[in-house]
Amino acid sequence: MNFNHVTQEDLAYFSGLLPGRVFSGEAISTDYDHDEMTLYGHYQPEAVLQALTTEEVSRILSYCNEKRIAVTPRGAGTGLCGGCVAICGGVVLSTEKMKKVLEVDSKNMTATVESGVLLMEFPQALEGTGLFYPPDPGEKTATMGGNAMTNAGGMRAVRYGVTRDYVLGMEVVLASGEVITLGGKNVKSSSGYSLIDLMVGSEGTLGVLTKLTVKLLPEPRVNLSLLIPFDDLDACIGAVPAVLSCGCEPTAVEFMEREVITCAETYLGKRFPDTSADAYLLVRLDGPSTEALRPAMEQLTDLALQMGAKDVLLADTDERRESIWNARGAFLEAIKNSTPEMDECDVVVPRDMIPAFVRRSVEIGRHIGVRICSFGHAGDGNLHIYVCKDGLDNTTWDRAVRQAMDELYAAAREMGGEVSGEHGIGHAKKRFLAKSKSETHMSLMRGIKAVFDPRGILNPGKIVEE
Amino acid sequence: MNFNHVTQEDLAYFSGLLPGRVFSGEAISTDYDHDEMTLYGHYQPEAVLQALTTEEVSRILSYCNEKRIAVTPRGAGTGLCGGCVAICGGVVLSTEKMKKVLEVDSKNMTATVESGVLLMEFPQALEGTGLFYPPDPGEKTATMGGNAMTNAGGMRAVRYGVTRDYVLGMEVVLASGEVITLGGKNVKSSSGYSLIDLMVGSEGTLGVLTKLTVKLLPEPRVNLSLLIPFDDLDACIGAVPAVLSCGCEPTAVEFMEREVITCAETYLGKRFPDTSADAYLLVRLDGPSTEALRPAMEQLTDLALQMGAKDVLLADTDERRESIWNARGAFLEAIKNSTPEMDECDVVVPRDMIPAFVRRSVEIGRHIGVRICSFGHAGDGNLHIYVCKDGLDNTTWDRAVRQAMDELYAAAREMGGEVSGEHGIGHAKKRFLAKSKSETHMSLMRGIKAVFDPRGILNPGKIVEE
Repeated sequence: MNFNHVTQEDLAYFSGLLPGRVFSGEAISTDYDHDEMTLYGHYQPEAVLQALTTEEVSRILSYCNEKRIAVTPRGAGTGLCGGCVAICGGVVLSTEKMKKVLEVDSKNMTATVESGVLLMEFPQALEGTGLFYPPDPGEKTATMGGNAMTNAGGMRAVRYGVTRDYVLGMEVVLASGEVITLGGKNVKSSSGYSLIDLMVGSEGTLGVLTKLTVKLLPEPRVNLSLLIPFDDLDACIGAVPAVLSCGCEPTAVEFMEREVITCAETYLGKRFPDTSADAYLLVRLDGPSTEALRPAMEQLTDLALQMGAKDVLLADTDERRESIWNARGAFLEAIKNSTPEMDECDVVVPRDMIPAFVRRSVEIGRHIGVRICSFGHAGDGNLHIYVCKDGLDNTTWDRAVRQAMDELYAAAREMGGEVSGEHGIGHAKKRFLAKSKSETHMSLMRGIKAVFDPRGILNPGKIVEE
Repeated sequence: MNFNHVTQEDLAYFSGLLPGRVFSGEAISTDYDHDEMTLYGHYQPEAVLQALTTEEVSRILSYCNEKRIAVTPRGAGTGLCGGCVAICGGVVLSTEKMKKVLEVDSKNMTATVESGVLLMEFPQALEGTGLFYPPDPGEKTATMGGNAMTNAGGMRAVRYGVTRDYVLGMEVVLASGEVITLGGKNVKSSSGYSLIDLMVGSEGTLGVLTKLTVKLLPEPRVNLSLLIPFDDLDACIGAVPAVLSCGCEPTAVEFMEREVITCAETYLGKRFPDTSADAYLLVRLDGPSTEALRPAMEQLTDLALQMGAKDVLLADTDERRESIWNARGAFLEAIKNSTPEMDECDVVVPRDMIPAFVRRSVEIGRHIGVRICSFGHAGDGNLHIYVCKDGLDNTTWDRAVRQAMDELYAAAREMGGEVSGEHGIGHAKKRFLAKSKSETHMSLMRGIKAVFDPRGILNPGKIVEE
């Protein structure tokens, strides 16, 4: 793809449209040259444009499409695959200032927000309605638009599903500047190709999301967590199918190992409430009352003990629950903090393959000579595997991380897995995506890209583009 | 689109591939010239081909693509919009004989089936696993493949979602004959554009579905139903938001009116168990035990009485439950049976618009002078509205049904609804789809169609094609 550079004339046009919200040269904060994974490089855009309205987004796209200027849409920049980084130059089009909650419709149990509303800000808008938004990705400073565009998952996905399952409507600006509305407040539809499902997870390569309507659910009144220590990871993960199929409807089923817990203890400066085991299953139940959850809790306790658990610890006070979930929530940052550099693999595999995959990752780390640690969503087969640089020199590290990633993704393919469970592809995971799909599959995706964005200006170099 | 006719040479080729499973001329059963809605016309295909394997489907498509012969994929032919009818001639490619349940994987809670397995046959394969397949479209003689290709809904959608939410993997043959595999046993993914979601609901216009892997859930041990009589439909539907948001997690929330119930009584030759009211809400709850459902049941009872219900009747015996649900299940056939001809409108509207839409449909019927009756999924805003010919003469009927449909779909658009909640578009609803979407939206869909099927041989004249 050949794009035109941003000229003084272009900047003047942008500044006329977005007074005080256009940045170029030195005025661009270095925040915009990367996402949360600095390993994937720093790419300074030629300009950063902060839009406030759909109309502005439309005009910018129409102009850039005409002038053939690359446009990289960006929310809060909390991605993990370089999806919002301007690797082909051009402009970063940021929706970070589009932060209005436009409507909470209690009767239809929906809310409509601008795409820049942060996940952590949204619950305030729902206060007093008795409703909640189930998707719960770990990174609360992400935008809701970014979550939709990566189809973000999170810990409550076992029971409630992922972001895709909650996006009912979208307002999207196409590369041409045309504004389209997909879906609305309807909870089902069989009315032609599901463009909304195509847009979800498309990482800004097919359009720029400006508004979304999401589905809400009645908020469960109580939740409790069971921390279940096991002798080793195999026994721990081995219990998962029984937990999932027993009918107790867990909200979250996470696994964690001692090594990662120790990392989190160091990072948080707080002790984890149990020291008895090397591997834990953490199960959360949601319900109308503690009383109503008791049968499920008892059933799970019996089941876990039958499956070789050393104990079953109930976290039914806020304090206890927080000490466990805060540790779990800090894993990514804690691992990041434990090593000067790291790379991440977000594969999803059929649930029964988790132990085999984790074992394989340990073997891969051992034979390559690099520290690999992992945690993840045992309930949905989505693993987060981290390859850590630690004290390796740059040359050794570069070779080690490349080899480790190649082997990890090859193992995922072999086990029927996919490249990404919830973080997306961006530019960092493109070569693994291309290896995991047939050439026909890739060319269908490229064909779709061309239908939405014939001149290829939208988020170039991502997902399917070589 | 210009297609070539099926020649003797073509027939000879097909017969070599599918010995004994190729029909032409008089040998074609008239079953193949329509679906369940005979109002939309009879279209005799030039040949009917019954495939047994993916390989056969691939060879047929590759041949027809080369020769430019139109191919209309067909499951059990139970659709309601003419989606599986060969309106452009050519061959009907039937998957009705592809009926193997290939695997039930209890550990991953998935099953893999050939696309021709009937919805009513599938539960046998799950016996003893404790698992079930939640989608529950009314028409049990439909194929699972057909359900996926129309994104069929059904009564349990309120709690469990629609077919889309249960299709994890697909084997699809493209128009070129290439076989692609989409998804697998993974329960989540953010790995490029969701082609599987594009395929679901595409009614055979993008590919021919040969296998699908579906998600299963632990089977709830008990279910009970509450039949709640109201004075009128407004009060009845008015109670729905409270029922949905109270946290009792209903599996199904249906509404029914006396007129339709009477129809069903006549059709089944059985009395409905209550005669006290003109409008009813029917709510089903699923759970691990009757005991566990008691709080939800009591909460619902109090709520309904507060919202003006005349009574709350518990159906907790098999007999009582069946008498109610059998009546509900017979509505479509009963209405069909009550009139020499009818047309159907399967709109979905935001849930709070149901009373307004039903009221509007009554007004439309009244001012046009045609009988219109309705029932539907109050819990998800999906209405089934029937315009009945009764004693009208053909000319009056033709004009009346056209005007009624125009006005019904216009009303749905105005209320933020979609053309189809669960039946699809086929050829019968094309003009309403085109009216409900922008030209840009339609052209994106046509662009996608061209990516998957550049020569336009697959199910021509459906959904997006003029």
